[in-house]
Amino acid sequence: MSEAVKVAVAGLGTVGVGTLRLIETHGDLIAARAGRPVLVSAVTARDRARDRGIDLSSVRWFEDPIALATDREIDVVIELIGGSDGIAKNVVEAALRAGKQVITANKALMAHHGSDLAALAEASGATLAYEAAVAGGIPVIKTLREGLAGNAVSRIHGILNGTCNYILSTMRETGREFGEVLAEAQELGYAEADPGFDIDGIDAAHKLALLSALAFGTRVAFDQVHIEGIREVSALDMAYADELGFRIKLLGIARRLNGQVEQRVHPCMVESHAPIANVEGVFNAVVAEGDFVGTVMTEGRGAGAGPTASAVVADLVDAVRGVTLPAFALPAEALTPVEVLPMADHVGSHYIRLTVLDRPGVIADIAAALRDEAISVEAMLQRGRAPGEAVTVVITTHETTEAAMNRALEVIAGQGAVLERPRRIRIEAL
Amino acid sequence: MSEAVKVAVAGLGTVGVGTLRLIETHGDLIAARAGRPVLVSAVTARDRARDRGIDLSSVRWFEDPIALATDREIDVVIELIGGSDGIAKNVVEAALRAGKQVITANKALMAHHGSDLAALAEASGATLAYEAAVAGGIPVIKTLREGLAGNAVSRIHGILNGTCNYILSTMRETGREFGEVLAEAQELGYAEADPGFDIDGIDAAHKLALLSALAFGTRVAFDQVHIEGIREVSALDMAYADELGFRIKLLGIARRLNGQVEQRVHPCMVESHAPIANVEGVFNAVVAEGDFVGTVMTEGRGAGAGPTASAVVADLVDAVRGVTLPAFALPAEALTPVEVLPMADHVGSHYIRLTVLDRPGVIADIAAALRDEAISVEAMLQRGRAPGEAVTVVITTHETTEAAMNRALEVIAGQGAVLERPRRIRIEAL
Repeated sequence: MSEAVKVAVAGLGTVGVGTLRLIETHGDLIAARAGRPVLVSAVTARDRARDRGIDLSSVRWFEDPIALATDREIDVVIELIGGSDGIAKNVVEAALRAGKQVITANKALMAHHGSDLAALAEASGATLAYEAAVAGGIPVIKTLREGLAGNAVSRIHGILNGTCNYILSTMRETGREFGEVLAEAQELGYAEADPGFDIDGIDAAHKLALLSALAFGTRVAFDQVHIEGIREVSALDMAYADELGFRIKLLGIARRLNGQVEQRVHPCMVESHAPIANVEGVFNAVVAEGDFVGTVMTEGRGAGAGPTASAVVADLVDAVRGVTLPAFALPAEALTPVEVLPMADHVGSHYIRLTVLDRPGVIADIAAALRDEAISVEAMLQRGRAPGEAVTVVITTHETTEAAMNRALEVIAGQGAVLERPRRIRIEAL
Repeated sequence: MSEAVKVAVAGLGTVGVGTLRLIETHGDLIAARAGRPVLVSAVTARDRARDRGIDLSSVRWFEDPIALATDREIDVVIELIGGSDGIAKNVVEAALRAGKQVITANKALMAHHGSDLAALAEASGATLAYEAAVAGGIPVIKTLREGLAGNAVSRIHGILNGTCNYILSTMRETGREFGEVLAEAQELGYAEADPGFDIDGIDAAHKLALLSALAFGTRVAFDQVHIEGIREVSALDMAYADELGFRIKLLGIARRLNGQVEQRVHPCMVESHAPIANVEGVFNAVVAEGDFVGTVMTEGRGAGAGPTASAVVADLVDAVRGVTLPAFALPAEALTPVEVLPMADHVGSHYIRLTVLDRPGVIADIAAALRDEAISVEAMLQRGRAPGEAVTVVITTHETTEAAMNRALEVIAGQGAVLERPRRIRIEAL
């Protein structure tokens, strides 16, 4: 068998250690599948003293990550440091400039700088792979880049953040409120102490931006993703969703419409029998619609040491096998700037929940506000009567533009009998 | 851009025509993604005169498929003739010997001769790809061969035949009997006039044999797949499955157990909340379990011109890009003969349905037969009383060996009060 491929790993957190464990566990398997043995010969991390439960005695330790990334002996550099800028970016850029095969699990880095890094890789004959950056162990990058290569993709939608999906699943199952379930998720390690990155939709948006670029052949445009998180989803919304035959999911959606592309991450009501509606807990799923293949869904664990290491090593085996495709399926220079459909022009149906004073004329005023924007009501629910007190009114609408709905909600919010800011969840037809 | 890759298509049935349509529709897309234009320059089929609704005027027509397969001008040969032997096999062998890149959708051919063809390909520097042979447009070969390359796979299970899944889904939804639903499926074009290949499980077994070889690094062993079809599944079984919280699916299952491999295709009762239980109609799905990635499921259309053409073209784009991996992930010489766990040693739970005379002592006799084989009863249902008449008794058991269950069923079948041959459906814990 040929000489070993020499691998450097930058970053020894959960995923870094998981990757070393996988390579150690399956050294023979990887060598057989890749055609050459793989040797982790160098590592770097912030704290050398920390006990990570793995033996690093035969591995070169680099204090300087850039020295590691450019070391002449190294063939493949795996970046598992994280963060959109700073050291992670410096390591990846240095390794690409040095012509290395670079593998990263860093969605923030790829979402912010993916197109430039892809161009840098091509300019220096290096390669850049990032399967682990989206949906953990699910081979979704490979599916889009290779498996659906014969299709024009019209839409991708996915559950891209396991923390949010765990929280929403648990809220539905237990009837409990967001804050309580988040606190529990933090205790269980499913949510970070500082959870904003996940629950405000940023992490899902990073991944969506990458899928969108890959599917539509455009430059990555994270700053053009419409992002809303799940903080405002309430137990009441969960109960109404159930009654209306929906599930509430945080979806990332990228859709091509007349030459423009929608890119959005927000809570959605989806029909409860849709395949993605039944993806529960920390699982992720991505659905792609191609003009020849139809609908393809992939589902699996979207995070964690094992699944993420699995994706890193899939990229590594590809790299050793010589499968080195352009990062975004097309040569970097062929990627076009994305022309994003403004969110105001988005067309869809809505669920609206209002807290109103139960008195004559309230419903008529709300209905008038919708009528004035030509928004057609699909259903209206008012459970129980409580004259003179606060009651909940739920309305579902037919399709309308986002702009019209925003104007109508502003009018409704200003009506005297409307006691709280109206809540809105978009209904997604899948 | 470089010179066009010249492609020959052998076989112009539904999939052949679909493939030509796809290549015509997405010529620019394919050229951009593959890095070179793709030109269909030669075709062959049985009947030249037939109107296929596509323009073949600029394409060379070969009467002799072997001449097409070995033509010096041709780079890639796509075999869409079908059948495990005869012309299809001759074409593929001739093309491989001539060093071509060969793509096939032919599961029967690959299931019977896959390992030998892989060896032939390697010997002559040719390549062999067959994504379209399993689960239509779902990139399941790619997922196993590349996406999960860092995992030891412990089990694969899948809905691998859309005809069977359509029939079973429709039986459940409508409460109708197998024969009636089959007849309707034939009218709708979801089942062949001669349906045995599908409903007796052969087609699913072809695909399972390929997945098993790929997952476990073994030679393809179709003749060592235990195969049962769905003819004996009744409306009554459907109703009881529903009551017991199960769905009935025809699954292909390959599992590694202590160095041996189980390979079986048969109707299964699966818990109704299992992801695969909710894959309905003509859809296929494959679930792979890897030691690092956990469970990954892919779902999509398993047949039809569009999805199958999508898989053929994915292989084509790979071939043009230079992604030419061993057919079964490892070099052909490294594939080991599979050591199959004899079906008699299979351990699992069972659903048993009996038609018995309603008289005292009947249940005791049945229970005794199970006890004598140390089979533990999980539940027993007897709905209604009809002294002296035939009633249905349903039993679910805890885990036991297949051999013990077979012996117990033989004893039960011989009991005087047991009026019909006992029906058995294995319960699959997923």
